[in-house]
Amino acid sequence: MADDDLLLGYEKDENELWLWDDLPELHMEVGYRINRLLHFERSAYQEISVAETSAFGRMLVLDGVPQITEKDGYIYNEMISHIGLLTHPNPQYVAMIGGGDCGPAREAARYPDIKRIDVVEIDPRVTDVCQRLFNRSRAAALDPRITIFHEDGARWIQKQRERIDVLLIDRSDPFGPAAVLYSRAFYQHVYSSLSYDGIAVFQSGSPFFDMKGLKTTYHRLQSLFPIVRTYVTSIPSFPGGIWSFTVASKRHDPLAANTDKLPAGTRYMNKAIARSAFALPEYIQDALRT
Amino acid sequence: MADDDLLLGYEKDENELWLWDDLPELHMEVGYRINRLLHFERSAYQEISVAETSAFGRMLVLDGVPQITEKDGYIYNEMISHIGLLTHPNPQYVAMIGGGDCGPAREAARYPDIKRIDVVEIDPRVTDVCQRLFNRSRAAALDPRITIFHEDGARWIQKQRERIDVLLIDRSDPFGPAAVLYSRAFYQHVYSSLSYDGIAVFQSGSPFFDMKGLKTTYHRLQSLFPIVRTYVTSIPSFPGGIWSFTVASKRHDPLAANTDKLPAGTRYMNKAIARSAFALPEYIQDALRT
Repeated sequence: MADDDLLLGYEKDENELWLWDDLPELHMEVGYRINRLLHFERSAYQEISVAETSAFGRMLVLDGVPQITEKDGYIYNEMISHIGLLTHPNPQYVAMIGGGDCGPAREAARYPDIKRIDVVEIDPRVTDVCQRLFNRSRAAALDPRITIFHEDGARWIQKQRERIDVLLIDRSDPFGPAAVLYSRAFYQHVYSSLSYDGIAVFQSGSPFFDMKGLKTTYHRLQSLFPIVRTYVTSIPSFPGGIWSFTVASKRHDPLAANTDKLPAGTRYMNKAIARSAFALPEYIQDALRT
Repeated sequence: MADDDLLLGYEKDENELWLWDDLPELHMEVGYRINRLLHFERSAYQEISVAETSAFGRMLVLDGVPQITEKDGYIYNEMISHIGLLTHPNPQYVAMIGGGDCGPAREAARYPDIKRIDVVEIDPRVTDVCQRLFNRSRAAALDPRITIFHEDGARWIQKQRERIDVLLIDRSDPFGPAAVLYSRAFYQHVYSSLSYDGIAVFQSGSPFFDMKGLKTTYHRLQSLFPIVRTYVTSIPSFPGGIWSFTVASKRHDPLAANTDKLPAGTRYMNKAIARSAFALPEYIQDALRT
């Protein structure tokens, strides 16, 4: 792209192109040198680009914020997916809101007994770009059980009544198009959309840099679901590395998940991790108790 | 400091001072805005500075590389210390090489039965600066069981013969003054310095960005010790977040550590973490198998 047409986050510096992930509240910046810019466009919702970095390979960037990368995207995809899928004894209908890159859908597709996998991604351009530039996305799109809906997830969920066995909320940061996926009403709609023993898993942010956000998610879910548990993982391309997910369940406890069901082929998740992810550091336990 | 006297890593930008942690092999940079520069000097060994950041509070910086911070330093200190201290049934003599900030020494001092804690830090200026500017370091220095030796750790260790119960290798990155702490000879000297049932714990780098370094540490230790286990944690101020330590033991297995001995007052470590830290993601397990 020409100098006067740079997307959010990109900067030219002596003929090198850099992407700067700005963390304004922390007064921090993380810069990646871009070896090649594979795609950029402005969609109806956001700026979408795919950049090739040395540190993480191909990186999907929305409005200047790195979302998922070739080298560590599998960690996010496996960690948001398998805990819920292992916890439910027999999931038939699985859905995910956000995640147009289809990474979590591909993880769900590893379970032969799942009959239907719906992906709800508001921006059709994200899906299209990912399918062209990320192998994982292309592979996922080929599974006949997967259907992609280009709709607002917060509206789509209101049409599902007690139907979904496992629902993954693959939401981006709580501003822009994803802000509505953090509202009190949204959590209520999620509850209503789940079957009598349904399970929802939420991306719930950095426990180190945004404990307040995690606590809000946790407490809102506790007011609705009998079983709510936060688990953590390490995602190198996310600020601070440590990242949280929160699982809300109507009936089945993730600590009793049948980890023998874990399909082969994962690169982060294994039976031990499916349990140990719930061993929270003291600073997180302390914060969630209050 | 004046513009023409800037230390490694620091840059002035429109009257703001920034510290840039340069990761050249990854073509990445992480920048911290410095609210206040509390100290800077050039010692006989390195450039030492303490900077106040928004993201992590006070930060000790050596030759431009962030070492330990006020807000997350406890994670490193607790994780390098307690696994070895819990694994040994009755440690009397504990020593640490590196770590002039005395953070790990303070963790060891929480165990009332430990009789002697030696800290070997090559650079007396590091110890002095930390004791003035980090509360943790000051508190540790007051414990009468702690003695600080300003010596080269690689030489000091050769004078200890089968004496040390728990030895912590709190080494910085494998270049500069710490390079010798990664040599084959050093691992042999560590083995010889330990008592008949002694235990050593090594900082062993980022498993994501430097798997080769972790594998080298792991395999060198395996050629000397009957029990070698790698464990991981999440340290937000370290590149990529996920970080590894490797414990090498002559007799006691860390997986059988008596976690009931864990002293009160930790902020990261707890009984569950003392076990779950050994649950390695598949990508690490795979790499260590080969």
